[in-house]
This record gives sequence, C-alpha cells and structure tokens, in this order.
Amino acid sequence: MILRHLLLPDILDMLADGHFNELRDFFLEQPAPEVAELFTVVTDKDRVLLFRVLPRQLADEVFSLLDPIYQNQLLSEMANEEIQPVLAALSPDDRTALFEELPARVTQRLLALLDDSDRKQALTLLSYPQHSVGRLMTDRYVTVDPEWTVAQALEHLRKTGTDSETMSMIYITDETGHLRDDLPLRRLILADPGITVATLLDGHYASLHSQQDEEEAVQVFRKYDLHALPVVDEDNILLGIVTVDDILDVAADAATEDFHKLATVQPLQISFKEATLGLLYRKRIGWLLGLILVNIFSGAGIKFFEDTISSVVVLVFFLPLLIGSSGNAGAQASTLVVRAIATGEIDSADWWKLLLREIGVSAIMGLAMSFAAFFLGWLHGGLSVGVVVALSMFTVIVAGSLLGTVLPLILNKLDLDPATASAPLITSVADIFGVLIYFSIATALLPIAT
Amino acid sequence: MILRHLLLPDILDMLADGHFNELRDFFLEQPAPEVAELFTVVTDKDRVLLFRVLPRQLADEVFSLLDPIYQNQLLSEMANEEIQPVLAALSPDDRTALFEELPARVTQRLLALLDDSDRKQALTLLSYPQHSVGRLMTDRYVTVDPEWTVAQALEHLRKTGTDSETMSMIYITDETGHLRDDLPLRRLILADPGITVATLLDGHYASLHSQQDEEEAVQVFRKYDLHALPVVDEDNILLGIVTVDDILDVAADAATEDFHKLATVQPLQISFKEATLGLLYRKRIGWLLGLILVNIFSGAGIKFFEDTISSVVVLVFFLPLLIGSSGNAGAQASTLVVRAIATGEIDSADWWKLLLREIGVSAIMGLAMSFAAFFLGWLHGGLSVGVVVALSMFTVIVAGSLLGTVLPLILNKLDLDPATASAPLITSVADIFGVLIYFSIATALLPIAT
Repeated sequence: MILRHLLLPDILDMLADGHFNELRDFFLEQPAPEVAELFTVVTDKDRVLLFRVLPRQLADEVFSLLDPIYQNQLLSEMANEEIQPVLAALSPDDRTALFEELPARVTQRLLALLDDSDRKQALTLLSYPQHSVGRLMTDRYVTVDPEWTVAQALEHLRKTGTDSETMSMIYITDETGHLRDDLPLRRLILADPGITVATLLDGHYASLHSQQDEEEAVQVFRKYDLHALPVVDEDNILLGIVTVDDILDVAADAATEDFHKLATVQPLQISFKEATLGLLYRKRIGWLLGLILVNIFSGAGIKFFEDTISSVVVLVFFLPLLIGSSGNAGAQASTLVVRAIATGEIDSADWWKLLLREIGVSAIMGLAMSFAAFFLGWLHGGLSVGVVVALSMFTVIVAGSLLGTVLPLILNKLDLDPATASAPLITSVADIFGVLIYFSIATALLPIAT
Repeated sequence: MILRHLLLPDILDMLADGHFNELRDFFLEQPAPEVAELFTVVTDKDRVLLFRVLPRQLADEVFSLLDPIYQNQLLSEMANEEIQPVLAALSPDDRTALFEELPARVTQRLLALLDDSDRKQALTLLSYPQHSVGRLMTDRYVTVDPEWTVAQALEHLRKTGTDSETMSMIYITDETGHLRDDLPLRRLILADPGITVATLLDGHYASLHSQQDEEEAVQVFRKYDLHALPVVDEDNILLGIVTVDDILDVAADAATEDFHKLATVQPLQISFKEATLGLLYRKRIGWLLGLILVNIFSGAGIKFFEDTISSVVVLVFFLPLLIGSSGNAGAQASTLVVRAIATGEIDSADWWKLLLREIGVSAIMGLAMSFAAFFLGWLHGGLSVGVVVALSMFTVIVAGSLLGTVLPLILNKLDLDPATASAPLITSVADIFGVLIYFSIATALLPIAT
C-alpha cells in the first residue's frame, strides 16, 4: 500500500482514540484504491468505523472498489439513511454485482432504497441470466447523432459526459435506438469541428449480445483489443456497454473457477483467503467421497486378479508406478484440452485432429516410459516381469492420454463443463484401466500358480 | 466470423483464380479483426497470397492483430522491401512481442530494416527482462504541461495525438521527464477551456515500474480499474505506457501457463492448437519420466512390507483407494494455494493461518472419508481390516492435504514457481506417504504371518 504519511497501526490508534476529524483530513489526501485495499486488512468493526469517517465522495469511490463480501458487511451495519446515498452513487454494473451476491431478502430491502428509475434499471439488469453479458452492463456511455457536426458532438459530450464510465468510445444510434456504429473519441477530437459525425464513420463495429456468456465476451475483447464494447439485444437495440476492467475480473474469476474444478473443488464464490473452514469442507468433500466409488472399481479389479498377485507379489511393487504414470499422462492431456476449450482455441470440431495428434504423442511418450519401466521391472523381478511392466506402461500411458483428451471433448459436446474432467477424476478412472491392463498382461504372460 | 458477403471457400476460389482486384475491393469493406481471424484458418501459402492482396492500411492493422507465430511465417516469405513498411507501422509493444519470439538471426535482419530511432527504441525495449512490464510498453501516449490552459492542451492533443494508442488518459510530466500526475481525457474535455491544466490535477496517480513482473501489473490494473498505466524507471522518469488489452493477454497467458504447470506440462509458448506432436512430446515427457523416480519410492515402500501383503492380500484391494484419496485431497489443497498466490490473494505471510485452517478442513474431511472407508474395509476384509483402512484413510487425507498446502508455500518462499507443486507431483509424493502409513498401521494392528 502507498498510503502516505501514516501506517496502519497509527490509523487504528487514531480511530480507537476518537480522532475522527484528523482521520478525515488524512483520508482526503489518499487515493481511493489504496483506501479500499486498507479496508480488506482491518477487522469488520474497524471497517465500519473507518467507512463512517471517510469524506462523502471518497466513501462512494472506496465502496465501489470493494469486493461484494465487504460491501455486504458494511451495509449490514448501516442504517437505511446511510445506505441510500452509497447505493445511489454505485454504478449500475457494480450494483448488479453486489445484489447478485446478497440473500434475496437483503436485495429486496436495498432495492426499496433506490429511486424509481434506478430500481427499475437494477431489476432489468438482474433479470439477465447469471454470468451473462447483461449483468456486466452499465448505462454510463454517450451516444451521438450522425447528423451532428463534430463541434456539436463535442458540446454534447461536455454536457452529458460527466458520468460516463468510458468516453474513449462514442456510440452512434439511430432515432429508434439501433446501434449503427462506434467512434473513438480520439477520432472525434482530431477531426475538423465543422464536418458532420457521419463522415467519420466506417460502419465497422463489434458488439456483444446481452444474453451471451460473459466468458465469450472475454474472447471478443481479446480479439478486438478494445476498452469497451456495446451490448445489444436481438434487434440490435443498444442496451448498455461493458468495460474492459470488468472483463479482466471475469477472465481472472473464470480461470480461478476452472483451476478449482480441475482439482475437484467446487467454485468457492468468495476469495480463498476469506473462505471459512466449513465452506472449504463443503466445496471439497463431495468429489472426494464420489471418487471413492470410482476407486472401488480399481479395488474390485485387484480382487479379481488376487491369484496372480499372490503368485507374484513383486507385481504390486510396480502398481503405484503404472497407475500413477497413467493418471499423470491423463491429467496432462485433460488440462491441455480443458484450457484450450476455455480460451476458445479449440472446440469439438477439432476432435479428430486432436485425437490423432494425441495418439502420436502418447505412443512416443509410452515408448520412452516403457524403456524406463522395463529396466526397473527387470532389475527387481527378472526379464519376464520387465516385459510385463514395459508392455503395461506403454498401454496405460496411451489409454490415460486418450481418456484425458476425449472426456473433456465429450463433456463439451454435451454442453457440460469440460473442466469436470478434473485431474483427480481422470487419475481415478485411469487407475481402473491401469489395474485391469497390468494384471491382465501379467496373467497372460507370467506362470501363475493356481 | 462476420466477414460480409463472402464465405471462406469463395475467397479461396477467387484467390486461386487470380481475381486479386476483386479480392482487394472485398477486403476494403472488412474490419481488420475479422480478416486477422480468417488468416488463422488458411494454409501458410494462402496466408501469404492473401496478405499481398490486402490494401496497405488494412494489411498493417491485420498484421498487428496476428499472433507472432503467423507474423513470423508471413515475414519469412516476404522480401525486405515488403517487410519494411509493415514493421514500421507496427506499434513498439507489438514489435517487441514479435522480436522476442524470433530466432536471434531473424531479429537481427529485421532490426536492420527499421529506421534509426525505431531500431534504437526496439533495442531498448528488448533490453528489459522477459515477462517484465518494460517489454509491454508503447510510446504512443500524450503528455501535457501543467501550465498550459485546457484549450492549449486540447490543441496539443489534436496536433500530436493521431498515433496515441490510448488517449483516455493524458500524462503530466515536468521539464526533466518525471511523471507528476495523470488526467482522464474526460476531465480535460469537460473542463472550462480557459483554466490551466494544473487546476485539474489531484496528485494521485498509479504507475508501474519497467522492471516489474508483468503478472504483478495484472494485479495493479485490477486494483485501479484503469485502461492504461504509465511506466516509470527508478527515478520516476516516464518511459512509456502499458494498455489494458495487452494486460488481458498477459493474464490469460499466465493462467494458461499455470494450468499447464499444475498438470506437469512445461509452458508451450505457442497455442495448443498449433503445437506440433514433437513439441507436445518434449513439453510433457520430462515430468512423466521424473515422476518415475518418485514412484519408485512407493514401490520400495511396498517391497518393505512384502510380508504384510503376502499375509493379508486383501490389503492391496484398498491401496488404490487410499493413495488415490490422499493424492486427490493434496491436489485440491495445492491448486487452491497456487491459484491464490498467483492472483495475489495470499503470500507466505499467511502461512500459519492457512496451515491451521487446512488442518481443520482436512481433519473433518478425513473423518468423513474414514467412515466410508471403514464400511468398505469391514465388508471385504472384516472388522480389523475396516479399522486399519479407516485409520489409514484419516491419516493419508490429512497428510496429503498438508503436503498440498505447504509445498507451494515453501516454493514461493524460496522464490521458485509455486505451480511446480503440480497435481501429479503431489499425487506421487502422497502415494509414498499413503503406502508407508497404510502398511505400517496394518503391520501394527493385524496378525502377520512371518
């Protein structure tokens, strides 16, 4: 933090001693993002006290920068008269983000504190599906008429632009609200003030649909390198804009969710740091228990080959190596495919190309791994065990890799989340394959006492 | 793709038939991002032909939007006279991104084609460490003097701003180039033209350091919600700016790298879709082979308990379940910690808090898992085997979870990449723990024939 002149302990001392006016003067000099960061490291009680000390405008800015979890905590301690101006100052997209995290009961109470037009707008935004582009929209943009001159358009900006979240792009609409074009503010400022706006337009613009998934919006932003994109409905009516700062958050949160899913942790919704013991337990235990069911099959497979194992106990020595390697190769493959689907690099249409390449890659990896496995097997169990371990290694590497490639593609094709093909799931299923393949080959090739 | 009026096969037909003028007219109507997307789905040969057909300005725009892998391919087919204007039109940050992907020999050849000032600038940018903020910098920004009036500043923008990549933020420097403040273009436009720029300044600004890691820059952008940030050296001299579109790419690429590392795939550098069979093999085989060494320890552990296993072969039945569950719990923990470090949520200072919470979470998970394990053990091996399996399950869940929490924290403290604590590494080490814990408990509690 680059809070100037004062350290956190000093601030808390001043707060405890009731030096509210001095604190207010101090905060007047501080940038809002630094104060917002300070608010994440103090206790719930101090946060409320500090928020009450902040000068009005800074308080609004800080509130808008806070994570909904902290916003919610502050609101829960505030009276309606205190909440009203804070909510009114919040931008529509930040308001939606707050409301969607709150219990319905609290949202109802807060909605009642908004004025009619803000409430109507908030309800409209909340009516878009969760994780849709509509929920990220703000109305703080400027539209101009193509028939105006550049000077008129600039004058219009001066009058109406105070609130606009991003003015680097101006939007052109017709009289019925249809989006017709976009225009970089840069081009407007650099233009001859006497010409009409229409002469500056090129008819090329990118837009998002309000019902579109927010993760798709990340790809569109990356493709066009823009700082804001207009959002339209199915009739191309301009509904609002989405800004890139929200998209940066969407991209990071979506990646975090995929990281967690790939390790069988259900989405936490709140930050890992803030997660309680109980929440972490609930988000993790489900898959751990579920995978027991999968692991039972591996056990049943071993049970089936009990005679083989009793005859050649040294085979058990190589079991962790074989099922581990198979799972590792599978986890590599599934992670590569899941991430490539998430970033929009590939989709199910690439199915055959990916599968053929993976057969090649896994066959070469299987060869290299089976050489290593052969020497280990030979060393500890003799030539025939070496051959069994090597053959098994080759087969389980190929099987694990193909499983890891195919499962996320199938899930994606079924419109399920490809990240469900998590490393633990792939590993556990690969274990079953591993056990069956290994002991089948051993039973076929080794002399088994019955 | 929203290419208007023509489909890809039509375009390729026209190309094959030599209808270059018609194609040029067609492309004149197309937005650059769509043409760039088209360029990623055609063959290398067609890409070069199509590029030569593009009108000059569109060609420059399309080139700047292409991935360096395609830029490189195009350049390799072009003569020096063709390359020169393309390189000259490229913005400094895009030029750096291209040069850093090229073999040194090719970079030398291309540098020679730049004019003196561009070459000097390119060499300066390339002198910053890889993955540092300096490499993302562009010089396409505008600075104004605080003593100017708003009208003078706007006039200055009109004269110099044509090239500026983002004009939504103007920077204020003193006569020796030190950064003094930033000013949203919005505020300049909305201000009374007669007042001086100085009266609009608040002295608050955020900046990046040229030597800073680019992933840290992502956190700074997320904190400040800005579309561009100025970059300074250690003396606070303004060196350039970084724009949020590059940061969105950095965030996505860093996440992809972490996804791959967490599955023991070394960074691919190029897109998964474009990766060759050989490249994928090289990036995956290293860890697979390396983990064999780790798995040998599990095997050695089993060997050590050979007598126990021979006496109670049913124990092997539960081996995949126990080592699998331990690895799964460990993969959950390590992924949570690695991602939280990457997003800047936690650092090594949170060590104790995280560890205590994980002990709690893993103990409760261990209890739930050991109940399930007890019934399975009882069912298949009797009461005493049930007890052994339940006790083992509890212990391996806690051990795996703590391993997954501690290893990334240690790596981070040692300034190594926490993502090295991959799911396969954690799983393989957890296997060793699992084998030793399970058979030790079994040997202690069960009657073993010797």
